Amino acid sequence: MSAAFQTWMKQIQADVEIALEKYLPPVTLAPKTLHEAMAYAVLDGGKRVRPLLVFAAGELFQAPAELLSRAACAVEMIHAYSLVHDDMPCMDDDALRRGKPTVHKKYDEATALLVGDALQAQAFLVLSESQACAEHKLPMLQLLAQASGSVGMCGGQAIDLASVGKALNRAELEQMHRLKTGALLRASVLLGAMSGKPLEAKEVDALNIYAGAIGLAFQVVDDVLDATADSATLGKTAGKDAADNKPTYVSLLGLEASRQLADQLCHDAHQALLPFGESAQYLHDLADLIVQRKA
Amino acid sequence: MSAAFQTWMKQIQADVEIALEKYLPPVTLAPKTLHEAMAYAVLDGGKRVRPLLVFAAGELFQAPAELLSRAACAVEMIHAYSLVHDDMPCMDDDALRRGKPTVHKKYDEATALLVGDALQAQAFLVLSESQACAEHKLPMLQLLAQASGSVGMCGGQAIDLASVGKALNRAELEQMHRLKTGALLRASVLLGAMSGKPLEAKEVDALNIYAGAIGLAFQVVDDVLDATADSATLGKTAGKDAADNKPTYVSLLGLEASRQLADQLCHDAHQALLPFGESAQYLHDLADLIVQRKA
Repeated sequence: MSAAFQTWMKQIQADVEIALEKYLPPVTLAPKTLHEAMAYAVLDGGKRVRPLLVFAAGELFQAPAELLSRAACAVEMIHAYSLVHDDMPCMDDDALRRGKPTVHKKYDEATALLVGDALQAQAFLVLSESQACAEHKLPMLQLLAQASGSVGMCGGQAIDLASVGKALNRAELEQMHRLKTGALLRASVLLGAMSGKPLEAKEVDALNIYAGAIGLAFQVVDDVLDATADSATLGKTAGKDAADNKPTYVSLLGLEASRQLADQLCHDAHQALLPFGESAQYLHDLADLIVQRKA
Repeated sequence: MSAAFQTWMKQIQADVEIALEKYLPPVTLAPKTLHEAMAYAVLDGGKRVRPLLVFAAGELFQAPAELLSRAACAVEMIHAYSLVHDDMPCMDDDALRRGKPTVHKKYDEATALLVGDALQAQAFLVLSESQACAEHKLPMLQLLAQASGSVGMCGGQAIDLASVGKALNRAELEQMHRLKTGALLRASVLLGAMSGKPLEAKEVDALNIYAGAIGLAFQVVDDVLDATADSATLGKTAGKDAADNKPTYVSLLGLEASRQLADQLCHDAHQALLPFGESAQYLHDLADLIVQRKA
């Protein structure tokens, strides 16, 4: 990864942090505890992979900054809400997230439930309130709703729940992850590109291949890290999947084959970007980042 | 209430049931348990007060049926998701809803969590996919997001949670309900009207007064019923607010004064509709229905 990419990445992460704070309800506004807990769940944490994908894809067609920023914050709010709900006792029952106590530990379960619910609504609000024209935003809102719902992220969570203790084959595992994490990563890429212009079918196809590859790579690397890194590095409880008897790429393919798969997927992602030329450089570099990350 | 109103109401309720089934993901589609549970939470139950308000307000400006139907289903999905989450053990911990086991009792807590999350996304999807023009739908999506989120329904829930065991005064109780149930009832009225045409400020003002009055009346009657009706009639656990030591209009004003307040609010609602003439007849009748209901 080049120095230019590193500089760009740090700038986007800083910009997104400011934008998230701007687009969350002020913590001084009633109900204060809810608004504080929403900010706690969203701010000051995470690698902001989804916002980075939005902005990187925004480079393809010179998307306007305001719409990109709102799209990036919207997907990050959806992602953050899913983590809050996923950490709750009735789901993964996790105490640590991004190196901090999870929302239901810091506050309580009822607050965590409402924080997630309110963040989802906020995501749709932030995107719908953009100054961009209605014709431009509406397909983006549709995409975000589809990627978040029962045939997207929530559906993937449901398959994940149903799969605990079961021997999934590779196709089933892939389908689960394509929904659970893949749908929102794909939405991030497409939202970034759509912020610039309405997409042609072949552009959607190429970006789908890219997003599918990095989405899967993201999960494979997650499984590798869960099996090899420690909790302090990850900022969440390590080794949890194995302890929960959840199927993972590592349990299915082994560690070495999983690493090779991640490299292959990264290559596939790079290939899919070729038609976009130099404008896809940051998307290219983000594929590297996803595969080479240590946490 | 006239026979014409009764006929209209039954027709809308039947139409909405069919529309909800159409706009929910098919139960044959994977993940099946999630889609079954979403249908279980939404179909075959409830008085459909919010959809009735959408359609009644749609009469004001001859709104097109397709957009009205989608707006009605969207608010009902938001309402249904809020009930599913509200019934969970970490919130009101209720076993009975609309005469049936609550979703977390029928399925499990994790499924109930995901059902609510997925229904919220589905609500935004259903409204955003309408064939109506983007300029028309976008303010409606904004309104729905605002009414559902932290300064609307979720905010009201948060205030409700924080108020258990506290001595709220009447202003505080009113503020809580204005968000918790009032925001979505108001959104229903406005969405119905906005389905017809962009609203002028004085139209919004009049409809806000109407919606504020029926929203409050709805809650006052809820409190009266909770204190006086039995669980079989209500289709949910009666006497729960008193048992949970929650502040209610009955505990604050007494039973008789609460009934008088509901009548006064109904009168206020009727007055606010006068500028709309005969086109507001169903909204007028719905105010009566809300105050005179027995369950």
